[in-house]
Amino acid sequence: MTHQIRFLPDNITIEAEDQGNILTAAAAAGIYIPAACGGEGVCGKCRIHLESGEVKTTHGAGLGETEYRQGIRLACTSRVISDLVVRIPETLQADGRALTCRPKPTRPLSARTLASLVGSWETSPPVRKIALQLTPPTLADNVSDMQRLLRGITQALPDRPEPQYDHTELLKELPFLLREAGWLVTVILLQGKHAEEPCTIIAVEAGDTTDRLYGLACDIGTTTVCGQLIDLNSGAIIAESMSYNSQVACGTDIISRIIYSLRNRGLKTLQGKVISTINNVIEDVCRKATISPSDISYIMTAGNTVMAHLLLGISPKFIREAPYVPAMSIFPLTRAAELGIMAHPSVRIYLYPCVSSYVGGDIVAGVHACRIHESKEISLFIDIGTNGEIVVGNRDWLVCAACSAGPAFEGGGIRFGMRASTGAIENCHIHPESLEPMIVTIGNTLPRGICGSGLIAIVAELLATGIIDQRGKFSRNLSHPRVRPGVDGWEYVLVWSHDSLPGEDITLTEIDLDNLIRAKGALFAGYQTLLESVGLGFSDLDRVILAGNFGAHIDLERAIAIGLLPDLDRNRFYYLGNASLLGCRISLTDHRRFMERIQVRSLMTNIELSDNPGFMDHYVAALFLPHTDMGLFPSAGGPAA
Amino acid sequence: MTHQIRFLPDNITIEAEDQGNILTAAAAAGIYIPAACGGEGVCGKCRIHLESGEVKTTHGAGLGETEYRQGIRLACTSRVISDLVVRIPETLQADGRALTCRPKPTRPLSARTLASLVGSWETSPPVRKIALQLTPPTLADNVSDMQRLLRGITQALPDRPEPQYDHTELLKELPFLLREAGWLVTVILLQGKHAEEPCTIIAVEAGDTTDRLYGLACDIGTTTVCGQLIDLNSGAIIAESMSYNSQVACGTDIISRIIYSLRNRGLKTLQGKVISTINNVIEDVCRKATISPSDISYIMTAGNTVMAHLLLGISPKFIREAPYVPAMSIFPLTRAAELGIMAHPSVRIYLYPCVSSYVGGDIVAGVHACRIHESKEISLFIDIGTNGEIVVGNRDWLVCAACSAGPAFEGGGIRFGMRASTGAIENCHIHPESLEPMIVTIGNTLPRGICGSGLIAIVAELLATGIIDQRGKFSRNLSHPRVRPGVDGWEYVLVWSHDSLPGEDITLTEIDLDNLIRAKGALFAGYQTLLESVGLGFSDLDRVILAGNFGAHIDLERAIAIGLLPDLDRNRFYYLGNASLLGCRISLTDHRRFMERIQVRSLMTNIELSDNPGFMDHYVAALFLPHTDMGLFPSAGGPAA
Repeated sequence: MTHQIRFLPDNITIEAEDQGNILTAAAAAGIYIPAACGGEGVCGKCRIHLESGEVKTTHGAGLGETEYRQGIRLACTSRVISDLVVRIPETLQADGRALTCRPKPTRPLSARTLASLVGSWETSPPVRKIALQLTPPTLADNVSDMQRLLRGITQALPDRPEPQYDHTELLKELPFLLREAGWLVTVILLQGKHAEEPCTIIAVEAGDTTDRLYGLACDIGTTTVCGQLIDLNSGAIIAESMSYNSQVACGTDIISRIIYSLRNRGLKTLQGKVISTINNVIEDVCRKATISPSDISYIMTAGNTVMAHLLLGISPKFIREAPYVPAMSIFPLTRAAELGIMAHPSVRIYLYPCVSSYVGGDIVAGVHACRIHESKEISLFIDIGTNGEIVVGNRDWLVCAACSAGPAFEGGGIRFGMRASTGAIENCHIHPESLEPMIVTIGNTLPRGICGSGLIAIVAELLATGIIDQRGKFSRNLSHPRVRPGVDGWEYVLVWSHDSLPGEDITLTEIDLDNLIRAKGALFAGYQTLLESVGLGFSDLDRVILAGNFGAHIDLERAIAIGLLPDLDRNRFYYLGNASLLGCRISLTDHRRFMERIQVRSLMTNIELSDNPGFMDHYVAALFLPHTDMGLFPSAGGPAA
Repeated sequence: MTHQIRFLPDNITIEAEDQGNILTAAAAAGIYIPAACGGEGVCGKCRIHLESGEVKTTHGAGLGETEYRQGIRLACTSRVISDLVVRIPETLQADGRALTCRPKPTRPLSARTLASLVGSWETSPPVRKIALQLTPPTLADNVSDMQRLLRGITQALPDRPEPQYDHTELLKELPFLLREAGWLVTVILLQGKHAEEPCTIIAVEAGDTTDRLYGLACDIGTTTVCGQLIDLNSGAIIAESMSYNSQVACGTDIISRIIYSLRNRGLKTLQGKVISTINNVIEDVCRKATISPSDISYIMTAGNTVMAHLLLGISPKFIREAPYVPAMSIFPLTRAAELGIMAHPSVRIYLYPCVSSYVGGDIVAGVHACRIHESKEISLFIDIGTNGEIVVGNRDWLVCAACSAGPAFEGGGIRFGMRASTGAIENCHIHPESLEPMIVTIGNTLPRGICGSGLIAIVAELLATGIIDQRGKFSRNLSHPRVRPGVDGWEYVLVWSHDSLPGEDITLTEIDLDNLIRAKGALFAGYQTLLESVGLGFSDLDRVILAGNFGAHIDLERAIAIGLLPDLDRNRFYYLGNASLLGCRISLTDHRRFMERIQVRSLMTNIELSDNPGFMDHYVAALFLPHTDMGLFPSAGGPAA
């Protein structure tokens, strides 16, 4: 449910989610309200006057009784519960001039366009259940229990070859199970690669359990592991869970994990940690759905190449050393229980194949999810995390690369950088005249630091207001208390110490700016190098697909303004969210799509940017906001692309 | 090497093995020499006079110096080392009449006929090694290590699909192994079921090790486990070993093993014992051939259905309960190391499939070895042990059955019965006039008991001399010190207490005779029932194949004389020895034969004798020596068959 908020005196109407925070909603719509502390009503600057409608105040009102009765509220502690008319007090506007409302920077992706990108898929999973009422044995018909079962399956599926069975655990239980179940059993079959290939018997259950068939989709990230429990009879997500990858204790990024794996028992430790994280996710989704982990018949996962190696207990040592060779790229089918995952002994765990050491199964799953490999349109697929992985192509060809962009967008290399969690500055506007910031934090609490989306907003605002120049250097001519030389060189004070959680000034420094420019420069040079490798330019792109958690929160206009994304028609951009998890879910549910996953991977040609002579040239040219070649950024005042 | 021995005064010449015992050779040729103690020169009755040639005396001569100088020797302590002329002293003949020499009872199987039965096979094993010099990775070619390996294999085998690999152990070592080996490695491939099916990578070894490729053939018997180490490059047997199945401590026959398996942890104990026995065999053959157990690339085994279940840790509970259903009959491909067998982690262990609860993989292997399934001739295949397993058929059809013959031929149910080991009476002649026995023991030591072949000899002799009648009852009219009523009824004293190892009279009783008659009757009724089931009679049989250790030592004439074997042209009989082990060896060596094994099994139709109305009639009719229908036994005086 949404409500409308009309802001006066500028008479700008925006849509806001029910229960949404007014400050966050205003900031997202580009409406400037002074807000120095991000939330909790501490600074008291974000006063608004409620002219009609109702809000719910949180953290207490943060105001005197008189003001409250007059309809004054703090935007940061007010949640929308009805349509509103809100006046931003005149006194709050800088030097008496009317507030300049900016255009709404992002176009939220409608459900229709997401569907056009991802498409629909069948609920026809690679595993199926068949209930069988077997005839009990007699002296005249005393074939083995397994033969009887196979005969029953063959009678039920007369067009299929006799199924396989490849492990003895099944046989240990089978004779007892058949007799206890009165010869009424349900078999779980894993379908073969094609109709002529035999199925494999995964498990046999007593009675008719065909109404209960579950699969787990699981994205195994360096930082988080996300799982979805899918009812494979309906295709519905029946529970979701997220858990921090407990490997984080052994290093925050994949390089530190590789280094840890080289220690004595390091590999074993890392494997144990990711498996216990997956088990946490399994326990959580099973508790939510009130099923047992042994009811999960099939697990589909995707992760980057290092995560896949660590999950299987394979050393990632040579991934880190030139020429960056993984042990494998197509992962062997493994029984989940053999790895220590809570699952029925015969349940298989699939990992999406990876392309190279730094273009992993998560990227293949994402490309697979949004069907780039099936479309004639040319897509640029971008997943920005510690590294940026990029894919360009269509159904005929796919090239991909990983950029060592560095962890700037995850808070790394930024003095007050942090991950996107409570207290992170996620949005910011700087008033063009007063140069005062409007701070919005995740959770509307006091600010603790700056996350990726906040960083992009701040840099775009500093650039737009002229506080920094295109090289990312502070204007030395400004006489403003927030722009000052600090211990690390020039900096802009986002939050004064009295409004910040750590109790110190939260600033963005020129060093931070340098790191950000290098990160976005590497990514942009990556796009260019990939396109060039196939003789194309940005104008040839039909779609730009932003994957990953960060991609889902990016402010498109500002990301283009600083040169992180190419300056193309905004209608060509799509937000996909956790594309890796989506790919797993699709493969889990639709057998035809499941079978495609190896083919998608083999379509993808890896290009090593570190080995590419053009990349460094592009990189140097991109160390500018947005770029040295303004022809690439017509929105920023350059000539039309 | 053999020597000729001419026996005087009857002027009968026989062939004897170099170093062969004279008493044993004479008995085998049907020449009667009084010998009461079986060996060691104790009774001193088996005096012979050496007229020319030389012998080697063992256990000391057992004679005075004068006699020795005169050329007198004891047959039981003399080994043949040259051609001999030997006179059996007149005094040793009963009541002054010349010794009646019997016809040579058995026709030893010539190498030619064995070859015609078994045929030749290719040395083209299901596993193969390929040495690969891989190109080291570069930035321009940094595919994963596994992809590089697969590419190398595909280049070496351009007509084959890309191999599979299905376990992660291989990948744990691969990156290090490739680099340490300087990218020169040898892959061990398991061939697919047909040329279009991908191979499976079993292992990767550093360097070029193609000259070392070994497989283990292993017959897993209830009593003994026999192994042969095969050089798969040449097909040669390079070491052999036999070990008693240490499960014997948990019961001597399969029924007592099944009962033991139902105990708490009984199944686990039995599995552990057979695996440790196999490991003993592996250690022994590897020590003999100076290789490591991890050099064995492939293991082919056969055993009865209960042994197969116990090896895989599957409960055989329902095998013992009507309607006698095994858990499985085609055994899943298993990694030997998973079971605890000393082998490279990826080495597979194959078990010959079984037909039913009591017709096991050992029988399928035997039928496979002698190619009954390929011949147009109709064969009767007999394996006599605790049970007797019988197969009848040719390339178009095969029927099989198990007879609960009881363990009489393994010493069970016989008062002085014992297995065929040192001290067992293995041969016997009874002089037709004196009714005195000539005793020959295994190892030519003092007698301890009677083994299966001894039992057949004794019963045939008792029948031939009229000491017993065709019902197996002792003649009550004889006045002979050896024929007497004992504690268990009437009996014949084979060895007096002073000549026996246990120090008591060794006898054969009427109860023993009853047990033997029931055992041979069940087998004979089995042959008849199987033949009848396909509308045939004995005269339709082209070949009778005797498998198993007992079958290899059986005295054909006497076995026919008591009705254990049908009375057919002796040229139709073949001794195959350990057919199960031979089948394993052939499958191990020849990929084409290996692929046939499931097909052989599926050709075999099991017939439950306990459920067959004709069987009991045939059984009752066979409780006679040799049979109530003497028309079936023309050699014994019946009409021609």
